Amino acid sequence: MKQALSQLSIQTRGEGFTDITAAIHEEIKSSGLSTGLATLHVKHTSCSLTINENADPRVLLDLAAYLRALVPQAGVRPISGQGPLRPYVHDDEGADDMPAHIRTALTCTSLSLSVQGGRLVLGTWQAVYLWEHRARSHRRRLSLHLIGA
Amino acid sequence: MKQALSQLSIQTRGEGFTDITAAIHEEIKSSGLSTGLATLHVKHTSCSLTINENADPRVLLDLAAYLRALVPQAGVRPISGQGPLRPYVHDDEGADDMPAHIRTALTCTSLSLSVQGGRLVLGTWQAVYLWEHRARSHRRRLSLHLIGA
Amino acid sequence: MKQALSQLSIQTRGEGFTDITAAIHEEIKSSGLSTGLATLHVKHTSCSLTINENADPRVLLDLAAYLRALVPQAGVRPISGQGPLRPYVHDDEGADDMPAHIRTALTCTSLSLSVQGGRLVLGTWQAVYLWEHRARSHRRRLSLHLIGA
Repeated sequence: MKQALSQLSIQTRGEGFTDITAAIHEEIKSSGLSTGLATLHVKHTSCSLTINENADPRVLLDLAAYLRALVPQAGVRPISGQGPLRPYVHDDEGADDMPAHIRTALTCTSLSLSVQGGRLVLGTWQAVYLWEHRARSHRRRLSLHLIGA
Repeated sequence: MKQALSQLSIQTRGEGFTDITAAIHEEIKSSGLSTGLATLHVKHTSCSLTINENADPRVLLDLAAYLRALVPQAGVRPISGQGPLRPYVHDDEGADDMPAHIRTALTCTSLSLSVQGGRLVLGTWQAVYLWEHRARSHRRRLSLHLIGA
Repeated sequence: MKQALSQLSIQTRGEGFTDITAAIHEEIKSSGLSTGLATLHVKHTSCSLTINENADPRVLLDLAAYLRALVPQAGVRPISGQGPLRPYVHDDEGADDMPAHIRTALTCTSLSLSVQGGRLVLGTWQAVYLWEHRARSHRRRLSLHLIGA
C-alpha cells in the first residue's frame, strides 16, 4: 500500500458544471495506482463537487436552475415563504459571493471513491463535476489523495 | 494494511429509506477486517446515502415529507417564492426522475466511516440509510471499499 | 502506512458554528502522522460538519440565517410555497429537534481531507466547522480516523 497526493487545477467558465472525471483519471494514471481509494477536496468555499448524470445535459440545466432558485442571489427568503428577501450581510465580494458559499454548504466539498483498474468506480451514468457557484470563471484548485496499490 | 472491495445490491421499495447498516456489517465481516476505513458509494444518480436517527421512525417520515416539498415534482419554484412552478426541462424518464437527481445532489452519494471491532463506528442513534428518491422500487448497487487491518 | 483512531469531544454553544480545525490538528500531532488521509465523522444526528470561510464572520451569520429559513422550526412548507407550514410529526424531543435532523441531512456528517506536513490540506480561506443545529449547547463526540505515514 502506498499513497500519492496531487493537485488539480481546473478552469471553470462561470456558474455551472465542469466534468473532471477525465482529469482525475489522468492523475490516477500518473500515480501508477491500480486499486485504491481516491479522495478529492476542493480548496475553495464558493464551488463544490457533485456526482450526477453524464448523459442528458438538460439534467445539469435543471440542477443549476433549481439551486439558483433555492439560494437566491438577492438574500434569505422569509421563514413564512412570503414577502421580500432579506439581503445578505456579507456582500463585500459581490452579490454572487454569499449565495455561492451557501450553495457550497448544501452540496459537497470533498468526496471519496474507489479506484479499480486505474479508474474511478462509478455507475454507468455518473460523472464527477466541479460545480462553480460564482458568476464568473475561476481557476480552482483541488487536492487528490490516493491510497492503494 | 490491506484493502477489500465489494459490491452491495439493495432492493428499495420506492421513495423512502432502507437501513443498510447490517448489510455493510456483513461485508466487513466477510472481509476479515477489524480496524479500518469503510467508504461507501452509490452508483446511481437518483438515490443517495444518509446517516440519520434509527429510533423513532417518524423522523424518517418528516425527512421524506420535507425533501418532497423542498424539491417539488412539478418543477422549480420561482425565485420570488410565489407563482407557479416552472416544469423541469429533463422529463424523458418520468416526472419523478429530475426531482430525484436534485434530491441526490442535496444529500450524499458517498460517505466514509471508521471500522472498529469489525463494525462501523456510529453514534448510538445513527443508522446508514439508502435513500430512494424514485417513486418505484429499484435494485441499487453500491460499492464498498475497506482499507485497514 | 499505519492508522490511528481517536475521538474528539467538542462543546457547542447552541445553534451555530464551532471551528474545530485546531482540535483536529492537535489529534494529528498526537498520532505522529505526517502524510495521510483524515476522516472525520460526527456521531450525532442533529449537528453536522461543514467547510466554509474562516475570514469574515458574517459569512457564518448568513449561512445560519439561510438554513434557519430553509428548514423552519414550525414545520414543512407546502409544496405550493404558500399557506401555513405543516407541523412535524416527530416532536417529542422539542421543537428544535426535527429541523436539526433535516439540517443535518442537507449538510454532511462525515468528511475526508488530506494531511500533509502534519496538517489538513485546506484552502487559505477554509476552516472545518462543527455546525450545531440544536438551540442549546451540547457536548458532541466526533471520531477521527487517520491513515498514512
